Amino acid sequence: MADITQAQTEAVLAAAAKVALEQGTAMNIAVVDAGANLKGFTRMDGAWLGSIDIAIRKARTARYFDMPTGSIGELSQPGGSLFNIEVSNGGLITFPGGLPLYSQDGHVIGAVGVSGSTVENDHAVASAGATVEF
Amino acid sequence: MADITQAQTEAVLAAAAKVALEQGTAMNIAVVDAGANLKGFTRMDGAWLGSIDIAIRKARTARYFDMPTGSIGELSQPGGSLFNIEVSNGGLITFPGGLPLYSQDGHVIGAVGVSGSTVENDHAVASAGATVEF
Amino acid sequence: MADITQAQTEAVLAAAAKVALEQGTAMNIAVVDAGANLKGFTRMDGAWLGSIDIAIRKARTARYFDMPTGSIGELSQPGGSLFNIEVSNGGLITFPGGLPLYSQDGHVIGAVGVSGSTVENDHAVASAGATVEF
Amino acid sequence: MADITQAQTEAVLAAAAKVALEQGTAMNIAVVDAGANLKGFTRMDGAWLGSIDIAIRKARTARYFDMPTGSIGELSQPGGSLFNIEVSNGGLITFPGGLPLYSQDGHVIGAVGVSGSTVENDHAVASAGATVEF
Repeated sequence: MADITQAQTEAVLAAAAKVALEQGTAMNIAVVDAGANLKGFTRMDGAWLGSIDIAIRKARTARYFDMPTGSIGELSQPGGSLFNIEVSNGGLITFPGGLPLYSQDGHVIGAVGVSGSTVENDHAVASAGATVEF
Repeated sequence: MADITQAQTEAVLAAAAKVALEQGTAMNIAVVDAGANLKGFTRMDGAWLGSIDIAIRKARTARYFDMPTGSIGELSQPGGSLFNIEVSNGGLITFPGGLPLYSQDGHVIGAVGVSGSTVENDHAVASAGATVEF
Repeated sequence: MADITQAQTEAVLAAAAKVALEQGTAMNIAVVDAGANLKGFTRMDGAWLGSIDIAIRKARTARYFDMPTGSIGELSQPGGSLFNIEVSNGGLITFPGGLPLYSQDGHVIGAVGVSGSTVENDHAVASAGATVEF
Repeated sequence: MADITQAQTEAVLAAAAKVALEQGTAMNIAVVDAGANLKGFTRMDGAWLGSIDIAIRKARTARYFDMPTGSIGELSQPGGSLFNIEVSNGGLITFPGGLPLYSQDGHVIGAVGVSGSTVENDHAVASAGATVEF
């Protein structure tokens, strides 16, 4: 299994934090590896305490299903095909802000999760992390 | 980070309990500090046992996101941007009754959470605690 | 079932905190009712964060078995008749600092738990709470 | 309550990782803030997966009691005054590798936890993090 390295993790965290600073937001940013285990984490000064757990869960959720967290959220609504999937795995977060991370050759090597502002801002910061080229 | 003191905590609990007595309700009232750790708690005679945990979670939730718990609940409904956020952090409570506590100079120093009646009554009692001047 | 009141709880917390101040220690002090549910709690300024949970568990443990927590600890050692009883009930604390609370006529109406210093100091502060006359 | 910053956190992680590299060990390194909430985390390539949780718990335990984790472990042995304290707080780690972090003026502003090798190596890496001057 190709797996994200510590150096790549730091590049993802830095790219994401850079966009958060540009936004003027204070974010929690988490990276998990190909096994969905925590690889790196940073909390910017003033970021919400409740978003520590959410950032980590977003990263984990994105790797659990190899898709953006928001895509799962579209299916987990009342009447949806995955209604209340959030109670599984000790708690999933299915709104935007979590994205898979890919190697150059297209394999999932981990995921990034961001929490600390609106889901639009969270997603933009996660995208900055997810578009780092390895 | 400024933090709430024991004396301030007791003032919050007393101000909240006073309004509960005026309402004729029996409340659980919890205060957490700036780190979201329990600082003070009181259960009025006859208050619901199930509200012990809810009062503490409301206080924690309010500090986790530095906003009234009810504001989160507006966004966590089906179709909302934070649907099912409640599964994070070991369980959030996102209906009214939790409010941040601020120092004179506007920093969050903790939060108060109230549970034991309707959410309107819970919120009114929490507000009495949150408007104590430090 | 006779049960501790809010007024009695506050008297226990005050009597315990008074001795802590005399000791020069910073304590977490918890009171549970006859049903082992949290009734009151206070954390003195500077008290250990890890002792929040321990104070509450000591109170609960003392009421679970209607005896001083330290008495259970004597039986839970390796080779003892209650070895590792601590893993039950979501986690018991069996060293000194938790004591049952009695009504005038000798019924258990709750318990007090104290944590924040040596077990000797914790026990002394709990004793001050447990000897309040109702 | 003074609190550790993101920049200070990164300095602690870097100083700790530097010593781990010199040792030839692969470590999980966690930093919590004054409220015992996760502030930063890094896992070196090849570090044990089971040590993610242990590093975080060591940091938390050190801040919970403002002392080295190993000092608690000396008291939690069979016959010791804090026997089985590990069941509290959702699980404490009481062997070496967790140390409080202090501001210049002597206040605890957080803690560092390290796990991934022998407790001697873990402690040495944590010490490198804990002796960064802020």
